[in-house]
Amino acid sequence: MDTAGKIVKCKAAVAWEIGKPLTIEEIEVEVPKASEVRIKMVATGICRTDDHVLKGALKGIDFPVILGHEGAGIIESVGEGVTGLKPGDKVIPLCIPQCGKCSSCLNPNTNCCLKTHLSESQNVMPDKTSRFLCKGKAAYHFLWTSTFSEYTVVPVDAVAKIDDRVPMDKACLFGCGFPTGYGAVVNTAKVEPGSTCAVFGLGGIGLSAVIGCKSAGAAIIIAVDINSAKFDIAKVFGATECINPLDYSKPIQEVITEMTNGGVHYSFECIGNTDTMKAALECCHMGYGTSVIIGEAPSAAQISFDPILLFTGRTWKGSIFGGWKSKESVPRLVDEFMANKFNLDGLVSHTLPFDQINEGFELLRSGNSIRTILMF
Amino acid sequence: MDTAGKIVKCKAAVAWEIGKPLTIEEIEVEVPKASEVRIKMVATGICRTDDHVLKGALKGIDFPVILGHEGAGIIESVGEGVTGLKPGDKVIPLCIPQCGKCSSCLNPNTNCCLKTHLSESQNVMPDKTSRFLCKGKAAYHFLWTSTFSEYTVVPVDAVAKIDDRVPMDKACLFGCGFPTGYGAVVNTAKVEPGSTCAVFGLGGIGLSAVIGCKSAGAAIIIAVDINSAKFDIAKVFGATECINPLDYSKPIQEVITEMTNGGVHYSFECIGNTDTMKAALECCHMGYGTSVIIGEAPSAAQISFDPILLFTGRTWKGSIFGGWKSKESVPRLVDEFMANKFNLDGLVSHTLPFDQINEGFELLRSGNSIRTILMF
Repeated sequence: MDTAGKIVKCKAAVAWEIGKPLTIEEIEVEVPKASEVRIKMVATGICRTDDHVLKGALKGIDFPVILGHEGAGIIESVGEGVTGLKPGDKVIPLCIPQCGKCSSCLNPNTNCCLKTHLSESQNVMPDKTSRFLCKGKAAYHFLWTSTFSEYTVVPVDAVAKIDDRVPMDKACLFGCGFPTGYGAVVNTAKVEPGSTCAVFGLGGIGLSAVIGCKSAGAAIIIAVDINSAKFDIAKVFGATECINPLDYSKPIQEVITEMTNGGVHYSFECIGNTDTMKAALECCHMGYGTSVIIGEAPSAAQISFDPILLFTGRTWKGSIFGGWKSKESVPRLVDEFMANKFNLDGLVSHTLPFDQINEGFELLRSGNSIRTILMF
Repeated sequence: MDTAGKIVKCKAAVAWEIGKPLTIEEIEVEVPKASEVRIKMVATGICRTDDHVLKGALKGIDFPVILGHEGAGIIESVGEGVTGLKPGDKVIPLCIPQCGKCSSCLNPNTNCCLKTHLSESQNVMPDKTSRFLCKGKAAYHFLWTSTFSEYTVVPVDAVAKIDDRVPMDKACLFGCGFPTGYGAVVNTAKVEPGSTCAVFGLGGIGLSAVIGCKSAGAAIIIAVDINSAKFDIAKVFGATECINPLDYSKPIQEVITEMTNGGVHYSFECIGNTDTMKAALECCHMGYGTSVIIGEAPSAAQISFDPILLFTGRTWKGSIFGGWKSKESVPRLVDEFMANKFNLDGLVSHTLPFDQINEGFELLRSGNSIRTILMF
């Protein structure tokens, strides 16, 4: 059935309010306007940032909202003036856009396009209206991606065309988890061969950081998680030591400092927890250690720390989406994946049908999953 | 009079307890032991870190103590096994030593020698005894420098021989303030030509950071101080804009962000105040801004901040002694000064005789001085 030019009725997981499970609703998805595309989703991952919204821990969100930002789909139709994208193209919606024109896009040292949600709300399309209608009222977009819907509408600045041959259950990982963890290592920290690294949190982002450390030639990769069941897969990806903070009576940063003769060269926080962010800084070596915050903390979270840690030569940084300029880098990363540069097999621990999305969130909260992928 | 091999009686400013003025006492300075030198001080600056001790804001200090860490003097005698240093040499005691043998000294990316006070106490000489006797009891050393004394004893790892021709009232600035501020810009931040910079605090370190920004080719150098009387000299050193937070009703980081279309490339905190450290981070541009902590905060001070500032691509770092490997770099910096690479004339605002040291501290606390130098 040719749906182009028509409103599409389909299923979406709608978040009505903070603290409530999502409900699968029939929604209407409008025709893409100028410089927008409508995408039929094939697969989507569930990320902690989505859960932050459901817990009320991200500010600036309007309800009802269709969440989801780590997806892969196929273009169903395109709006006026869209070039370089056509129906049938496999694509990744981009939670960090790349407009190509703003001062950040023109600066080689940052991927923080001024069209990201950090600068302007992405709860609606660029024309300030929604493309989603649910029970007669507008539902809001999220990060311009809203992948928890059979169909979504995305501005062209927030979509990347990828290789037609890529399996979509893997492709969706390129929408958030893999580029975020891997890029934080190779772009943000720029880990050097022979380095000592510690990775806090072994979810999809943490394991992607382990892959990055291994690929950068790190000599020691210490993987940290409170769930030892994740250690086998961390070792497959390259972890040389795996430690569980629950096995020690002293703080884990002290354990790591002792293991590494004064601290690591690089540490990565892949959870979004302020205590772990501080521990990750503290386990860096005085004088030259660098800690990178990759996990997104809840809004309003504050870290309290002793500035002597920086004064004595440590560096603290962070990155969004691994520092990749999204629209140009995601297709390249997918190409590298197709050329077998990365084996992402172990990154997906659970695959569920889309309508079991709430079970997927429960798996995330339990700490027992790596990445749960929903298939439409 | 040849004093070599004998105990020297001389004047020193002794700190007996927290919160009390220093008192000028007659002390006895012992003969330097193996790998130590005894120095006749010629000039010393007063730095905020000395004042932190008097306010009880630095931990690990034993009393009575002879403070001072920014001095210049002449070697009076040397201990057994000392090579490369002889009586009559002009020298700078180094508050950050360079032993040349530890893992940090062997690492090109850090100057945090494992013999600094950060790793082992420098309240006594390496053999764990003091060379100072005051009123019949041992007085403690400070940072192995103790420049507030007519004579001091310093381990060879903490002393740098400098050009004989240098004027000593300028030379002492190479013991702390100038290398610290200048090095934070050129070594730690690595400011690039055309950059936008903000310098918080226009004391000796802050103005040295301004000199560094100018020398690195920064296009915009915003100097920030609550004392507008310092703006003229800041402009002489290269500041392109000078702003006083007291002149604005909004936080100064917002003022700077607006002035610079989203924030600066580099900011430098040269005060040691946790609120200013946070403001300096906040005025950095999202995506690529870097803030450097140069001022030493009081012990136990904590900064509370929103990790989104780092997550969105800012970098926070710090450095001690400007990242310079001290023993090898200080003589080179002095050579560059003698070759007129830097004009440090405005860095010294007050020169007093040594016994007016308490007036010097009052000038520091008043915020009305840049650097006060005491001449012996």
